[in-house]
Amino acid sequence: QEQILLELDRLRDKPPETKDGYLVPITANIELLEELDAVGARGAKGIGLFRTEFLFLGAGSLPDEDAQAEAYIRAAESQYPSPVVIRTLDLGADKLPAGFEMPDELNPFLGDRAIRLCLSHPDLFKTQLRAILRASVHDNVKMMYPMVSCVQEVMDANTLLRQCMMELSQEGVAFNQDMQIGTMIEVPSAALIADIIAPHVSFFSIGTNDLIQYTMAVDRGNENVAHLYKPTHMAIIRLIDHIVKVSHKHGLWTCVCGQMAANPQLVPLLIGLGVDELSMSPSQAPLIKDVIRKLYYSAAVELAQKALVSSSAERVDQLCHDMIAQIAPEVLELSE
Amino acid sequence: QEQILLELDRLRDKPPETKDGYLVPITANIELLEELDAVGARGAKGIGLFRTEFLFLGAGSLPDEDAQAEAYIRAAESQYPSPVVIRTLDLGADKLPAGFEMPDELNPFLGDRAIRLCLSHPDLFKTQLRAILRASVHDNVKMMYPMVSCVQEVMDANTLLRQCMMELSQEGVAFNQDMQIGTMIEVPSAALIADIIAPHVSFFSIGTNDLIQYTMAVDRGNENVAHLYKPTHMAIIRLIDHIVKVSHKHGLWTCVCGQMAANPQLVPLLIGLGVDELSMSPSQAPLIKDVIRKLYYSAAVELAQKALVSSSAERVDQLCHDMIAQIAPEVLELSE
Ligand SMILES: [Mg+2]
Ligand SMILES: [Mg+2]
Repeated sequence: QEQILLELDRLRDKPPETKDGYLVPITANIELLEELDAVGARGAKGIGLFRTEFLFLGAGSLPDEDAQAEAYIRAAESQYPSPVVIRTLDLGADKLPAGFEMPDELNPFLGDRAIRLCLSHPDLFKTQLRAILRASVHDNVKMMYPMVSCVQEVMDANTLLRQCMMELSQEGVAFNQDMQIGTMIEVPSAALIADIIAPHVSFFSIGTNDLIQYTMAVDRGNENVAHLYKPTHMAIIRLIDHIVKVSHKHGLWTCVCGQMAANPQLVPLLIGLGVDELSMSPSQAPLIKDVIRKLYYSAAVELAQKALVSSSAERVDQLCHDMIAQIAPEVLELSE
Repeated sequence: QEQILLELDRLRDKPPETKDGYLVPITANIELLEELDAVGARGAKGIGLFRTEFLFLGAGSLPDEDAQAEAYIRAAESQYPSPVVIRTLDLGADKLPAGFEMPDELNPFLGDRAIRLCLSHPDLFKTQLRAILRASVHDNVKMMYPMVSCVQEVMDANTLLRQCMMELSQEGVAFNQDMQIGTMIEVPSAALIADIIAPHVSFFSIGTNDLIQYTMAVDRGNENVAHLYKPTHMAIIRLIDHIVKVSHKHGLWTCVCGQMAANPQLVPLLIGLGVDELSMSPSQAPLIKDVIRKLYYSAAVELAQKALVSSSAERVDQLCHDMIAQIAPEVLELSE
């Protein structure tokens, strides 16, 4: 095992490229500023999901625009010229910033959170949008909205963004007018209208954890039903396939930033389905890069085609397992 | 208005048939035995959704097989020969029978309920299955499972059902070996694998309330997000279209038993999408029958085609409103 880990370490500066030359960028999911330095050290390049909640939680008061801009700029500079995708606030329910009062919710996962909460608190939201825009002078900064369930939310958020742009222009503050805007696809309705959302954004980022949870109506934190939570449920495979196809048809790219992207057994399937980028906890990057570098893209596509005509999660799991056993058996060893 | 209501009353014994001769059976959603008599009186024929929770709630102990069989037989006899679709237990979360202890759930709507709870309590479930089988000597009895999210649940439930059949056979108790079994489609994953579920059932019943709720990740009981709950969200229209198409391809029929079926403005759309039956609160039956009888099926299909290529709930609402304004303006009057 030590031998394997040493070899994985050597992959750090190698590209995440399949044996037949297909590149799948590996980016990092980041929760805290302190994690920024580890991104490159573990072989990821850039940030596919920069969570911004840490700025709002724990502190005694809401962070102002300057404090936020400083954090976003630090993230952007730390990765330059690799991309940094900043996710707008994904708060709500149990995760509430100081001074926020919300009524108790019977089902917080189906409640007032993320983009919903931001749109109903435009001042809070605009402060963040302005801070992100200020950071966008570093042209590696992108931004995405979480928990989108209908196209109107994207349009409303973009309207606020344009307002912020106008204000900053009038104030003579610099920003990148062409910053890429994306939306997370983690609510089934968003996946099902991806074609309607596509014209309003530049990329999709699939949050598989929530997408699975909502699609199956399973709170995976609930031990009585956690066994039902299945990333390889045919409904999920079909949805990912659909999202990717729609995104490519509209000239967008699609990242997966949920835990599926960090699961070496599922990575060939995601790549075969056409996912353009994988974002994960930096510690998983070496393992995933190892899998990618031992994979033929053509074999991944074949795997995905077989998965798409399967009829059970168990069958898809078997296909995925067989592929890994063949190309990277050490991965199975490590996970045992 | 009184005039209108009187005229609606006269429809009681008329068939729910469009102007061009397309029949759309109207059945009733029933919660209590006392409601059985009102079904025919208001012009519905049979029961599309017979909820069985009332037997389990409020009472000091669980109802035994005899008590359940008696209730199911009474329902079957009251409607004979019109169909009675008995839904197996849809309990869980806040709705728990006497003597049931369950851990508190953070998100009960994503928790241990309905078919999930039944499959993890096979004794409870088998008692109900046996009682329903006994009632099935009346050949108008059908049965369906709620909250299905994967095909395995349907298969497991059917396995228990076959066990019950064998037991009853050995005991010399009569039942209908060919009772129709259906599944509710109210979890997005079930809708997305309708083709995989289809071979295991005879019909689908779309529970639009839950389907919308899960698809959009919106608890409509939560006033902060209730505005996002939209029956005409394009994701919902597309899902219903998909479910109906799959069901017909597999030789099944599809009922809608959620509140969409009781909304006169949405009924032409549902009919145009190919829904085969509408089940609703008996009090809504006259109004819905009025709409059906003033509708051309061909116009409904045209409406559905327009809705399917729309890109917003507002546009679909407008199409539905225009249709009603044209064929049954008194409905708009009544709902104002
Ligand atoms: Mg999420
Ligand atoms: Mg339901």
